[in-house]
Amino acid sequence: MIKANDPSLQSWIPVSEHSDFPIQNIPFGVAKTKNGNVFVATRIGDTVIDLFAVAQLDHFQVIDAEVFNSCRLNDFMLLGKQITRKVRDEISDIFNSSNETAKNHEELKLALYDASDVDMLMPVQVGDYTDFYSSEQHAYNVGCMFRDPNNALLPNWKYIPVGYHGRASSIVVSGTPVRRPKGQQKLNPDEPPTFGPSVRLDFELEMAFVTYQGKPLGDSISTTEADDYIFGMCLFNDWSARDLQAWEYVPLGPFLAKNFASSISPWIVTLDALEPFRVPGPVQDPKVFPYLEYHGDKHIDINLEVAIQPEGSSEKVVSRSNYKHMYWNMNQQLAHHTVNGCDINVGDMMASGTISGNDESAYGSMLEISWKGTKPVQMPDGSERRFIHDNDTVIMRGYAEKKGIRVGFGEVSSKVLPTN
Amino acid sequence: MIKANDPSLQSWIPVSEHSDFPIQNIPFGVAKTKNGNVFVATRIGDTVIDLFAVAQLDHFQVIDAEVFNSCRLNDFMLLGKQITRKVRDEISDIFNSSNETAKNHEELKLALYDASDVDMLMPVQVGDYTDFYSSEQHAYNVGCMFRDPNNALLPNWKYIPVGYHGRASSIVVSGTPVRRPKGQQKLNPDEPPTFGPSVRLDFELEMAFVTYQGKPLGDSISTTEADDYIFGMCLFNDWSARDLQAWEYVPLGPFLAKNFASSISPWIVTLDALEPFRVPGPVQDPKVFPYLEYHGDKHIDINLEVAIQPEGSSEKVVSRSNYKHMYWNMNQQLAHHTVNGCDINVGDMMASGTISGNDESAYGSMLEISWKGTKPVQMPDGSERRFIHDNDTVIMRGYAEKKGIRVGFGEVSSKVLPTN
Repeated sequence: MIKANDPSLQSWIPVSEHSDFPIQNIPFGVAKTKNGNVFVATRIGDTVIDLFAVAQLDHFQVIDAEVFNSCRLNDFMLLGKQITRKVRDEISDIFNSSNETAKNHEELKLALYDASDVDMLMPVQVGDYTDFYSSEQHAYNVGCMFRDPNNALLPNWKYIPVGYHGRASSIVVSGTPVRRPKGQQKLNPDEPPTFGPSVRLDFELEMAFVTYQGKPLGDSISTTEADDYIFGMCLFNDWSARDLQAWEYVPLGPFLAKNFASSISPWIVTLDALEPFRVPGPVQDPKVFPYLEYHGDKHIDINLEVAIQPEGSSEKVVSRSNYKHMYWNMNQQLAHHTVNGCDINVGDMMASGTISGNDESAYGSMLEISWKGTKPVQMPDGSERRFIHDNDTVIMRGYAEKKGIRVGFGEVSSKVLPTN
Repeated sequence: MIKANDPSLQSWIPVSEHSDFPIQNIPFGVAKTKNGNVFVATRIGDTVIDLFAVAQLDHFQVIDAEVFNSCRLNDFMLLGKQITRKVRDEISDIFNSSNETAKNHEELKLALYDASDVDMLMPVQVGDYTDFYSSEQHAYNVGCMFRDPNNALLPNWKYIPVGYHGRASSIVVSGTPVRRPKGQQKLNPDEPPTFGPSVRLDFELEMAFVTYQGKPLGDSISTTEADDYIFGMCLFNDWSARDLQAWEYVPLGPFLAKNFASSISPWIVTLDALEPFRVPGPVQDPKVFPYLEYHGDKHIDINLEVAIQPEGSSEKVVSRSNYKHMYWNMNQQLAHHTVNGCDINVGDMMASGTISGNDESAYGSMLEISWKGTKPVQMPDGSERRFIHDNDTVIMRGYAEKKGIRVGFGEVSSKVLPTN
């Protein structure tokens, strides 16, 4: 067992009952204080911990403090899995309730901030960003809507973890407003296209993983090796303008429909912290090619939900899904991505694709929830939603829980602003 | 007129008659000497010039020398177009044949290297990479082969400069060998897919432009503003595995078929240096949306060629095309890319898509030249090519020429190695 995952551990920092951040989590992010200090941080309960300050007090044995004096996690991740795992273990030791020395170290307390007193920044400098399409129910739903329910899955779908390249520059952290994109739409098949603000703005409920430095160009990462190249995960809202997408995406895939923004949760939860929540995946039939075969439980049981909050109103949860509903797991995605020799770098981000469960309440996009806009969703303020309105806030949350230990992601929350 | 473009200028550095690099070019790249020194460089004739060394001798008025003490051009480009233009003018002044002081400055001569004595490195740290699909003849050819000659162009093609996101990590500089990718193929429609080395490895003759720092997320760049955000251009070989592509690309576009490697020429020729070679583009019918309208000549007359050199044999030129054959120009591409608010950063790379001219001799890929493998090309050694063989070297060259002034790109040359 990974030392920091021990369920019996407790922290001397208070952790409330349903917190996403017990001492078994120890996620990594980048925080900024009110007076402009920026540092690599972790979080226990509602306390954000300045790891640069902790490191300067010589609490770490395996790491140079400077790696935490950074506005991104990339330098830390460059140290590789063996080191980042040890650092997580060391953080666990420092904040363990049995550590009387640390508990009574007054200088250490200066490294602790109330979560409400810091802003969380983009945790990672994303090199390349890839989006997969790995939920069978989502692919099936889309196939039903736009093609034929009897042939909803395309012929390649069960052979290939289908993926495509996305835009890294426009990935933003939770809290960053998202502006409704303009673009070309062809709403009436018999009329020429028109241009204007998207009228079918949608979210996609996804999770993403962040990579360590990979192998050189020309080499591949096997499903067995994949765990060693995955640092951690976050929630990922793959904003999508359905009207722009429908008109532009044949034959080369989504472009302006996606690249105006993607939003992520600020804390990267390590793959180590998620190990206790591994579960088996679905039986894959047809049998996959040998490079996609894997051993052990490589799926993860992570409860997910999406809420929409109209301005000035309470929120409504419109979806409850789970990351375990993936057909293809991360190990398969990474093995596929590199089987042709494609190289990956530290800080690359790879998203899952929309995570839809098996019934309507678990669909991961408004496209599916409202079934192309034919089934509007009632909101608490009496309004309806087929897609996302201006000034709506979309909130995604996620956590894993087992035997009383809850390891969560917090949330990714983004307000939609009207077109410029 | 841009000062450094004056056709009457001559350099005190020798320039042979058909050189791509007269004093009117002044491209930018990154060079490495035999003893490991790396610096930002320019080139006149066959002489590579260490700009860091030149700057340390106080020859530049507008720039800090340190910006050239770099293994990438990004810091230089971050200074913006007004500064990079002035630096190009200053380089032109230093190496102008009338500059007796510089000509006789012995220390300055230590900054000069024979081109054969340095290796050229990746000139740019590419942030995001986008590939367009902007040659009408190429889109038409592909449509004829895979769809219907009567409806070869898809309905969106003349409304949208179709583009998609590609992989930045695997862009490599000329001279880097390219390994034949492995992947899934469905060569027989009635059989399940198979896995192995690509048997339809192809090049795509493209050009790419490199951007300055753009506007913040949510803003757009107009066609008129676009010139101010484009630093320069290079040759771009968008390697493509046609068998992988055919099986994977529906519905989200090319992925493993492209991301194993793309190759670029090492010198970035500034947009300023290419201004004298501007030409009008085609009449665009249907009329484009206002955000895609542009004024003035925004296409560029650049002669292009592709040669294949089998191992131990002489080369054969298999295509002669021209960058002026684009339907959509760079200004339109950039305006489209950002009309939804997508942000661009310094060092982003945007490729043209395959540049095919109007007759067979000008097609920009083996897919088109051999018409899906049905018309093999004879090589000087008696062998045939439908696609690219192991140990073939593919070489692309390009230059603009007008009134005796030739501004060229050199070449991008890459040898294909067998699958690992």
